[in-house]
Amino acid sequence: MASHNSYTPSAPAIPESYEPEDYRYPQRHGTSPPTTSLYGQQRPRPHPVPSHVYGGYSSFQPGTHTDVIRSFQAVDRDGSGYIEEKELQQALSSQYQRFSLRTIRLLMFLFKNPSDPLRIGPREFAALWSCLGEWRAIFQKFDKDRSGKIDMLELRDAFYSLGCVIPSSVLQVLISKYDDGSGRSIELNFDSFIECGMIIKGLTEKFKEKDTRRTGSATFTYDSFMSVVIPFLLAYD
Amino acid sequence: MASHNSYTPSAPAIPESYEPEDYRYPQRHGTSPPTTSLYGQQRPRPHPVPSHVYGGYSSFQPGTHTDVIRSFQAVDRDGSGYIEEKELQQALSSQYQRFSLRTIRLLMFLFKNPSDPLRIGPREFAALWSCLGEWRAIFQKFDKDRSGKIDMLELRDAFYSLGCVIPSSVLQVLISKYDDGSGRSIELNFDSFIECGMIIKGLTEKFKEKDTRRTGSATFTYDSFMSVVIPFLLAYD
Repeated sequence: MASHNSYTPSAPAIPESYEPEDYRYPQRHGTSPPTTSLYGQQRPRPHPVPSHVYGGYSSFQPGTHTDVIRSFQAVDRDGSGYIEEKELQQALSSQYQRFSLRTIRLLMFLFKNPSDPLRIGPREFAALWSCLGEWRAIFQKFDKDRSGKIDMLELRDAFYSLGCVIPSSVLQVLISKYDDGSGRSIELNFDSFIECGMIIKGLTEKFKEKDTRRTGSATFTYDSFMSVVIPFLLAYD
Repeated sequence: MASHNSYTPSAPAIPESYEPEDYRYPQRHGTSPPTTSLYGQQRPRPHPVPSHVYGGYSSFQPGTHTDVIRSFQAVDRDGSGYIEEKELQQALSSQYQRFSLRTIRLLMFLFKNPSDPLRIGPREFAALWSCLGEWRAIFQKFDKDRSGKIDMLELRDAFYSLGCVIPSSVLQVLISKYDDGSGRSIELNFDSFIECGMIIKGLTEKFKEKDTRRTGSATFTYDSFMSVVIPFLLAYD
């Protein structure tokens, strides 16, 4: 199996929550400090499927839920074992919703296998599916009126529960992005929530890689700064 | 006049080229070290137009070329003094070409007046026009066979002539972005050149703001890192 990059849940590099002392989020609403990894955890799944269902180079792991395998198979019509962005969009819509291609491209970027960045294989798909499930649970927890939307403060609380402290300056940028000028309070649907979440979490993990002593500051060379940021910018293409 | 952010040519903050000692680009092809600001320089324009042509809060400066004013007026049909993204796309197409909306949004992000980020006024438009003119001259200089495209090594040389050293890791990311898998050499048209250029230059200037001693390294707090990068990511929306 080819190596995974640090964004996939199976990557061991950054499993803990991010809480530099200087940027610790104040306890609010009685929530506990974050304890989970943002990209989800590998848990035993019900309805295990025999490992021979998918063989070869990049197969589903034993124990993968049948829904995951069926969703993948439904769009991988040529049985190649890989799906592309529009197929991923279709596969996820069976369980979640129809994500924008923008969000789909970001998910592919974050969950891709570096050796094959334009397609998603079974293991990447299962990891992505699992992650989305955990994020949906978070989203639903904060969508108290079941409107399918959460406001920006709830977004901040949701991220905190995931171990991620959104700086107020970033919250302002997000608010201005989603402000349609109508004067109504700004709310995010699940698609936008995932888009925001993947950007924030992906960048947070890249920052953590440089903040090895967990001081809340990180030093980048020019090369490393550009090399970290530009792939995110180009991920949408 | 409202204050401009650091991306506009009139901003005095970062007028010089970026050449930290550790990351100096080796001299190639006999090119001289970079001497110009990437976002262009305010130069006297021929065909000055009386300053009363546009009055009020955000007018064209005296000496603005008539082509600039006419292009702006042609799309600002309600005479509001501001244009939006599709109008900007149309206005630039008269002099340059039809840029993708993706590039247009990036240009708006980089040249916007912070107090009115969704529209472009006369001064921002003139600055953007002037900058594109200088970038086109660079592009044409490196497009030696006048094909309307330059390859990735020419892109690197073009950026060097603009004072910007593209790390090889970033060049690899760009190559992978524009690689269509056909095996042909990768080439950029002017639209993609401007998109790449604005991303690289915008991020370089942000890095320079933190690298005050020009050592080639910069320390970011978590907040400052996220606050620098996320607006770029959201600029395309």
